[in-house]
Amino acid sequence: MTETETAPAGVPAEGTRARVERAALDLFALRGFENVTTDEVADAAGISRRTFFRYYATKADAVWGDFAGHVARLDARLTAADPAQPVLASVCAAYVEVNDYAETELPLLRERMRLILTEPALLAHSQVRYAEVDRVIARHVAARTGASPADLVPRLVATTTRAAATTAFEAWLGDERSTLGQRLHQAFAEITDGFPSLRS
Amino acid sequence: MTETETAPAGVPAEGTRARVERAALDLFALRGFENVTTDEVADAAGISRRTFFRYYATKADAVWGDFAGHVARLDARLTAADPAQPVLASVCAAYVEVNDYAETELPLLRERMRLILTEPALLAHSQVRYAEVDRVIARHVAARTGASPADLVPRLVATTTRAAATTAFEAWLGDERSTLGQRLHQAFAEITDGFPSLRS
Repeated sequence: MTETETAPAGVPAEGTRARVERAALDLFALRGFENVTTDEVADAAGISRRTFFRYYATKADAVWGDFAGHVARLDARLTAADPAQPVLASVCAAYVEVNDYAETELPLLRERMRLILTEPALLAHSQVRYAEVDRVIARHVAARTGASPADLVPRLVATTTRAAATTAFEAWLGDERSTLGQRLHQAFAEITDGFPSLRS
Repeated sequence: MTETETAPAGVPAEGTRARVERAALDLFALRGFENVTTDEVADAAGISRRTFFRYYATKADAVWGDFAGHVARLDARLTAADPAQPVLASVCAAYVEVNDYAETELPLLRERMRLILTEPALLAHSQVRYAEVDRVIARHVAARTGASPADLVPRLVATTTRAAATTAFEAWLGDERSTLGQRLHQAFAEITDGFPSLRS
């Protein structure tokens, strides 16, 4: 606690986090993820290298922001789901709710998702992160259906809804005429109804 | 053509490929992908380092074997699909057909898939390989439905059927009581019918 930026009076740690993430995403978008050093991100955010590593284990983690918090919110939504709702609907609704961003958050979200979905150096890392989401979803489906989280159907719900969410994000990034929420709803409707748009 | 192992009379190049892949998978399974050098794989297969790199661009490529051929077979099956069959059924059938392995191929397939699905160093590489599959599927769905391959539904069919196939592979690896074909059929039936097993 010797560094003023980590816990100065009246400035919550959340402020530092947001500053680091914005600096990181801006630099990565401008010069490429591989060409920017951790020191440069720390400099741009006005913190030391040591402080950077107190918040993030790796340079890639700065791209993801507080992803653990995102997964925890997804888990909480699922735990609070109405047991009378079909389990697949609960999973899709939870995904939509945790991805309901304010208009002001969208520019940063676009930069973040564009990096995560297109930067080769982040691909391996993203698989590890997505596995955390899959575990939460499979555990919920298993609990609701009396299956084991290792069974085919709970895992299948996890991997296919995540594939749908990722594809919705990509479609949203590629075409600004639709909102992220619309894309998520559209993708999940196909999944839950067995691709109705493909029935002639 | 100065090296006897690449084209000796009567021994097709396919023989060398198979020998390298078996040597690579055996060594990786025994000592871990990261701990085995390309030279050691070449030595074990009885070829030079130079010959190894004539067949494979990287150490990771030896794990995948002739994946380009696998994707080409998937593409050919789709091209030959009956236009009267629902497009999603065509995609699932093509996946099942190209993954219909002979009993004798299963031990090597298990080693290969276990590495691809669990080895962190191969995760990023696998995303690039899977993208090739996705492109073939999305292009087929687009052609059949009059959409663009970049539209949401063609991409969604690609990503969710691949997620289903991958999950079927994982379930098969984790439980030897079922065949790969059974797992693939089970997973695709859930996808094409909107998860019938979750309707109470």
